Order: sequence, then C-alpha cells, then structure tokens
Amino acid sequence: MTAADPVTAGGRGSRIAAVEVTPVAFADPPLLNVVGVHPPWALRAILQIRTDDWLLGLGETYGDEAQLARLQAVADRLGGHDPFDLHDLRALVADVLAQERGGAAAGASFGGMLDVDSALETVYSPFEVACLDIQARRAGVPVSALLGGAVRDEVPFSGYLFYRWAGHPGEPEDGWGEALGPDQLVAQARRIVDGWGFGSLKLKGGVLPPEQECAAVEALADAFPGMPLRLDPNGAWTPTTSVRVAERLAGVVEYLEDPTPGIAGMAEVSAQVDVPLATNMCVIAMEHLPPAIAADTVQVVLSDHHLWGGLRRSALLGGITQTWGLGLSMHSNSHLGVSLAAMVHLAAATPNLTYACDTHYPWKTQDVIRPGVLDFAGGEVAVPTTPGLGVELDGDLLGELHEQYLRCGVRRREDTVYMRSIDPTFTPNTSRW
Amino acid sequence: MTAADPVTAGGRGSRIAAVEVTPVAFADPPLLNVVGVHPPWALRAILQIRTDDWLLGLGETYGDEAQLARLQAVADRLGGHDPFDLHDLRALVADVLAQERGGAAAGASFGGMLDVDSALETVYSPFEVACLDIQARRAGVPVSALLGGAVRDEVPFSGYLFYRWAGHPGEPEDGWGEALGPDQLVAQARRIVDGWGFGSLKLKGGVLPPEQECAAVEALADAFPGMPLRLDPNGAWTPTTSVRVAERLAGVVEYLEDPTPGIAGMAEVSAQVDVPLATNMCVIAMEHLPPAIAADTVQVVLSDHHLWGGLRRSALLGGITQTWGLGLSMHSNSHLGVSLAAMVHLAAATPNLTYACDTHYPWKTQDVIRPGVLDFAGGEVAVPTTPGLGVELDGDLLGELHEQYLRCGVRRREDTVYMRSIDPTFTPNTSRW
Repeated sequence: MTAADPVTAGGRGSRIAAVEVTPVAFADPPLLNVVGVHPPWALRAILQIRTDDWLLGLGETYGDEAQLARLQAVADRLGGHDPFDLHDLRALVADVLAQERGGAAAGASFGGMLDVDSALETVYSPFEVACLDIQARRAGVPVSALLGGAVRDEVPFSGYLFYRWAGHPGEPEDGWGEALGPDQLVAQARRIVDGWGFGSLKLKGGVLPPEQECAAVEALADAFPGMPLRLDPNGAWTPTTSVRVAERLAGVVEYLEDPTPGIAGMAEVSAQVDVPLATNMCVIAMEHLPPAIAADTVQVVLSDHHLWGGLRRSALLGGITQTWGLGLSMHSNSHLGVSLAAMVHLAAATPNLTYACDTHYPWKTQDVIRPGVLDFAGGEVAVPTTPGLGVELDGDLLGELHEQYLRCGVRRREDTVYMRSIDPTFTPNTSRW
Repeated sequence: MTAADPVTAGGRGSRIAAVEVTPVAFADPPLLNVVGVHPPWALRAILQIRTDDWLLGLGETYGDEAQLARLQAVADRLGGHDPFDLHDLRALVADVLAQERGGAAAGASFGGMLDVDSALETVYSPFEVACLDIQARRAGVPVSALLGGAVRDEVPFSGYLFYRWAGHPGEPEDGWGEALGPDQLVAQARRIVDGWGFGSLKLKGGVLPPEQECAAVEALADAFPGMPLRLDPNGAWTPTTSVRVAERLAGVVEYLEDPTPGIAGMAEVSAQVDVPLATNMCVIAMEHLPPAIAADTVQVVLSDHHLWGGLRRSALLGGITQTWGLGLSMHSNSHLGVSLAAMVHLAAATPNLTYACDTHYPWKTQDVIRPGVLDFAGGEVAVPTTPGLGVELDGDLLGELHEQYLRCGVRRREDTVYMRSIDPTFTPNTSRW
C-alpha cells in the first residue's frame, strides 16, 4: 500500500499509510473442552497499522483463514483513512463483508463452540484496537485514557484450569502432566497459583460427566479454602442437569458459566437456582442483550473485545451491564501479548468489572511482544502507563511465529477434527449430560 | 488555584492547573410552557479549564445558584487532575456531592419541570465536556473524533415553536410578536423556517387546552405540507386525553413527546396508540431505562448531555437505544454556543440519531463565543473540524453576560414563580387536561 496524500485525504490529522496482517502460530497444549481438544498450534493474526506521520498501532485477533482473508480485504482499502474515524472504519468493514461472495458473511470460527451471525464485530475489532493505539500515541496517553481512564492500576485475572493430556499424542510432554481427575487438577491449580499468584480459579468443564466435574470443583474448594471458583462446561448439560449441579455447587462457585446452551435453556435454569449464571455463549452480541435481559437469563456477562467489536463496544457492554445491574467478567481465547494488552486497558477502564478476567496466557510459551511488560504478579497485570497499548512487537519473535504458521499447515481452529484424528468415535458433548 | 506540579502529579501528561466558573445571564423571551413562562433572564454557567501545558477546555451548563456552588466546589479540588481521567473526575464529583450538607445531593432545577434524584450527572457534565475539549486539542482532532468520528458533516435541528407573549410585561416587545393561536404560530414558524431553514418543527405545548394545541399542529401541517412536526406538552395531559390526542394527530406528528407524566402513564398510553411516544421527562437517567424498556414506555428517547452526564454517557445512551431498537432525538434547554458546540459534536458522532435535534438557539440574541462557527444553514449546523470543540470564548462577550448576571438578580430558573408574579392564580398544567 502506498502512503496516502494528506492533502487529498482532507488535509488534517494523520492518515493511515500502511497496514500489515501477519498470521502467526504458537504451540498450544492439549487442553480439553466440550468440542474436543486444542490442536498443537494455535493461530492468531497480528495487525500493524502505520500512519503517514509514523505512528504505529497494533491489533490481534483470530487467525483462521476466513478471518485472515477478511482482514486483508479491509487492509487493502484502509489507506488514507483517518485513524480517529472509527465509525468510518466500521462502515468500511461492513462494506467489505457485504461484497464477499455469498452475501452475508458468516462469523468467525471458534473451534465449533460458538456461532456469530456476522463477522462484522470480529473483523472490525483488531482494526479498532490498532486505531486506538495510534490515537493514544498521538495524544501521548495510554489506551485506557481513551476509555475514560484507568480505575485500577492492576487488573486481576483468574487462573484457568483445564482437563488435559500430558502431551499431544506422538509429541513430547510439556511438563504440566496429565489432568483428568480431581487430584491432578488440584496439582495443576497449585502450580498455576504458585507461579502466577491467581486469586481465583476457573475450571473449563464439559469434558467429563458432571458428577466428576463437581467433585473436581469440590476438591479445589477443599484445597484452596475461600478461593473464588468458577466452572464452565460450555453448554454440556441439559437444563435439568444444570439445576442439579447448581444446587450441588451452591456456595462453592462464584458463578456457573454456560451450563446449558441458548437463552431459553439458560433462562429455564436461572429461574430455578440461586447460583449466578454467567455466559460467553448465549449473549455474545448486542442483539442478544434485549431478549436475554427480558428473560432474566444470566446474572453475569463475559465481555471479549475480539468478539464484541473492539474496546469501545466492550465499554458499551460494560455500561449496559451496569445500567441493568448485571455482573461483568471477561472471556479469553488462546492469545498473545497484543490481545492481553488490549484486555488489560479495557479492564482497567471498566468501573463495573465485578470479577477477575479469564486468560489463557499461562498456557503459552511464546509471544510476539518484547518482554518486560504485562508480567503477572499476585494474579494481576499492571496497566501500562506509556502511550498507546504500551507494548511493542519484537520483529524476530513475530518472524519466528509467522514461520511456524507457514510450516505448521494449520489454517483454522478445529478442536473436534483434531480430537477425531485421535478418537474417531468422539462427538461434542454439547447438551450431552 | 495554583498550577499543579507535574512531578508530584505523576510526572506524565498534562494536568489541570486552573478552573474558572463564570455565571452568565442572557435575555430570554417570554416563552410559555406547562409550568409557567421563561423569565427575562436565562442563566448559564461557563466553565474554563486550563492545563499546565496551556490547553484550554470549555464547558457550559445550568446556572442556578445550587449548580454554581457545586461547580465551584468541584473546581476547587480539580487542580493536578489528569484531564484524560474521566472516571477519576466522576469520582471526585461524587465525593464533592457526598460532602454537601444534608447528604444525598438533590438534582438541578429545571424550572420545576423535571426531578433528578442526583446532581452527579448534571455537575459532572460540563467538566467532562471541558476535559474532552482539552483531550481533543491535545490530540489535534475535533471532539467528535473522540466519540468515534463524525458520521455527518452537518447536524440537523428542529425549529422550536412556542406559545409566547409579544414581550415581557412592562418591557419592550422583542419583535417576534404574540403567539397564542394557530395563525400566530404559523407566522412564527414561517419566520423561523425562513430565517434558519429548519426542515422539521416542534411545538412546545402544555399551555392551552389540548384541542387548541391540536388545532395549532394541524394548522402547521396545512401550512407546511410534509414537514415533520412534534408536539411536547410536558405531561400536561391524563393518559386518556393523551390517547385521544394521539389518535387525532396520527399521521400528523412524527412523535408525541411526554403527553403524560411518568413511566406508568406513558406506558398506558403507549399500549393504546400507534404514534411514537418520545420523552425527556420520564427517562432522563440511566436507571430509568430498565423499567421504561421493560414496560415498552416510549419509542424515542431524547438525549441531553447536560442531563445525562456528558458526551460519553450520552453516547452510551445512543448505544443502548440502538441495541433496543429505540429512536433517538436530542433535548434542549435555553443555551449558548459552548453547549451548542458540544451538542453538534455529540450528534455528529451518533450513528443512530434518528431525528433532528431540538435547540432554543434562535430565541437568544446574545452569546459568549466568537461568531463565525455554528451558523445555521438549511436548519443544520456544520460540525467544526478544528481541534477540540472548535469554539473560543470572546472575553468581552463573556464579561458582558457576566455583568448581566450580576445586575439581573435572578439566581435560579423559576418559571412558575415568574408566571405568578404576573398571574397570581396560575398553577402548573401538569396532568391538568
């Protein structure tokens, strides 16, 4: 892309001069979930936007091939645009998607776990974050300042526990060991708490029958007295089972996340239990809020700027949950440091963040950003106070993870496909129990 | 206030060094409404915030003495604060109000027409606007850019018609003439449309029996075929009367604003009529949205950054109305150019502004800003593209209006008190018909 002419582009402010989309892959352990298991390589896309006055903004998002094609299609048309004009950016993304072959663009892939009706929010998000990075650098302030200012200096995260194998089949073990029962999960929790200092824990469920997962949560409660705990089976249960589990875990978990799929099922459970229900599955877009709120479906919504259309729309979600008296937490997919920086700025500037955020960060061993910021201490990450997101790409690391992307051959996240390559009889556990 | 030490204040970015609150009064014609009549002087407060790196931000709000005292109490504690830290500003305002004698601070006065439970939003608003003015100047962009960017280059306004006297009793007439019947209102409308080019018209009602106000609206419809019309009696009617009027004016008005007071009454009307109902009375704070939406009370909400806590919270209101499929318009009190600039930037950056905005601007003959921006053409105001709000104070004009404030002796807006000084038998028309 050539540099935009600032005169023809309106003659004021800086304009976007170059955009680069870099697909990367990083090693991911065999973490089990309702639809299968994480493949050996996790994909992300790293976005760099440069202005004609040499400000650089960063974004990170899903790296599936459909997402990459859409990112590139937007990138190809972004030259000359004003990095402050986010409504214009959103219109551009909508126009790019509308011109896709086949009309209405389907949403991003999340390993088969989620459906979104439109790719607008997921494609717009990393461009919005990169533009906010530029805006904040232009103003000489951290991104949190553009979201109203940090209300906390450190952002608390929850330690994310997984049922897992000791290693990918046929590959060396990664040292974390197998975790398929309560004792092994407690050992995993000890290690993650000792290493990162987390003050709350979440177990990804939907892997084993609910009685076994309840026993695991109870073992965690015994091992970590007073530690806030969450269980997220990603819709593995029927409403009836969900009520039974909620009764068993009342007073043990701070919330139960997506016990059963869909607004109707969650509302059915919600009407019968006292344990707060949370979701990152049945309320994942603005249009889900009115019916979910009308049916008193959940008490906690998990934001996710990758899914909800960037930091400003996630702040809008924060304002809505505050207005309706809902709790607010934050969802995570496997991600790298650019995403973590954006998550930290958003969380810092969200007054009503009522729960510690999720993150997969401890499970990865590689990154694309220069080390030294975003370190965990006491389960928290200090909010960067330097201009922009506060993180810089390391060109060597970016190149290394891009090389891995080229070599690994993985082009989309397919937890079920990968699981079936190991166990051909596997079917997803959605609504199974 | 002395300049803050940037080292002790954190050593990064600019800090607030000085704040000045200037009460002003400007001549206001005898405009009639449900609670009485506008007094000869309208009050506003002009806020100037200067940073230690010499950026100046402007705000404007209500000028009642209670509001002025609160503004000054906040101003006295603002030195050293970061103009980008709006959450911190909001916490400061809340703390100042909490320390008022008598505890929970009552809301601002609106001539007796509105009650707000808390003064937080009204006191916070002008400081937020002035800080956004500073932020935008720091980044070298218009305020609209901090709200996501202008989606329109011009903001449409609605011509605001009033029942009125030819002049204040005992004072010279102002040349607009009396308007107490359909023909006089049509003449007023001709003048305001010819002078400013408005493409829609709003009649402030609640002054005469509803049959007479319906006749006036019908006369306007005859005189201006196809012109969108609105009628706002500020809750002068019972629900039964409201339904009768709505049926009569179906197809004549684009919406009916606050025919009857309160969420319950408006919901009762809404359930029986097809004409969209709008409000700036029963939904004027975030906490009114959940019950109003649950009861399907209104189809259009009027935003007002002075009342809703600034531009960013008004943008949140815009996001909420978009999410729930509600229409969005904008309310106006008597105001000067700093407020108009803020209204224009907000409206420009609100994608789902579905109606032209209200403004009292044509009714005033004085201002505090340097002329040359914010002129009306075709009923619209071009959105300033220079940094910040795009307006500058004229020191001479500000001094003149401050002198008027000192001389006029008016210290709060009291439409009913003033009306009773002319007609001692007057009682407000709320729910009268």
